[in-house]
Amino acid sequence: MTNSKEDEENEAVFKALANTDRRRILDELRQEPRTTSDLCEALPRLDRTTVMQHLRVLESARLVITQRRGRVRWNYLDVAPIQSVYNRWIKDYAAPGADLLEKLRAEIE
Amino acid sequence: MTNSKEDEENEAVFKALANTDRRRILDELRQEPRTTSDLCEALPRLDRTTVMQHLRVLESARLVITQRRGRVRWNYLDVAPIQSVYNRWIKDYAAPGADLLEKLRAEIE
Repeated sequence: MTNSKEDEENEAVFKALANTDRRRILDELRQEPRTTSDLCEALPRLDRTTVMQHLRVLESARLVITQRRGRVRWNYLDVAPIQSVYNRWIKDYAAPGADLLEKLRAEIE
Repeated sequence: MTNSKEDEENEAVFKALANTDRRRILDELRQEPRTTSDLCEALPRLDRTTVMQHLRVLESARLVITQRRGRVRWNYLDVAPIQSVYNRWIKDYAAPGADLLEKLRAEIE
């Protein structure tokens, strides 16, 4: 059984991820850290205040780590919370085999 | 860039996962499929109607596959949507090294 602290952290992660714009921000951070201005350029539909609000939600969920250098904020993707979701339901357990699931899907469709 | 159909599917997954009771149901299915009655026994706080509502949400997000045998519904965890989240932000990309993130975390704390 998962302990309740871990479960609460997971909750913040899913709430942070349940928004398309925040998922897009994480997409932008996949390959390298980006400044907040980079992110505003990559998401021109959003104003800077909105981008910063999304970054705060992602930071609270520990999906993003921010580092200030001079006047510039650099944003890093931290994959640890997503790794922990993966571990909770996949890595640490034997899931039913892919063959069985394929058969079930075929029966349902 | 992730296509919008994949992104919509991800949305259903995060909304399904953003609920403690639904996460507990998935925990129960990690090791083996369970009948709906098994799940009701494992989650005595919830009445059968609530468990079935949660199962429907999990089925729409394709996190659970259900098979009826006679009068009994068997529920299977399908890890494919969680695998797809993992692939989107971890497997297919080079994330910043763990050392760098450790350093950043230490600076922040």
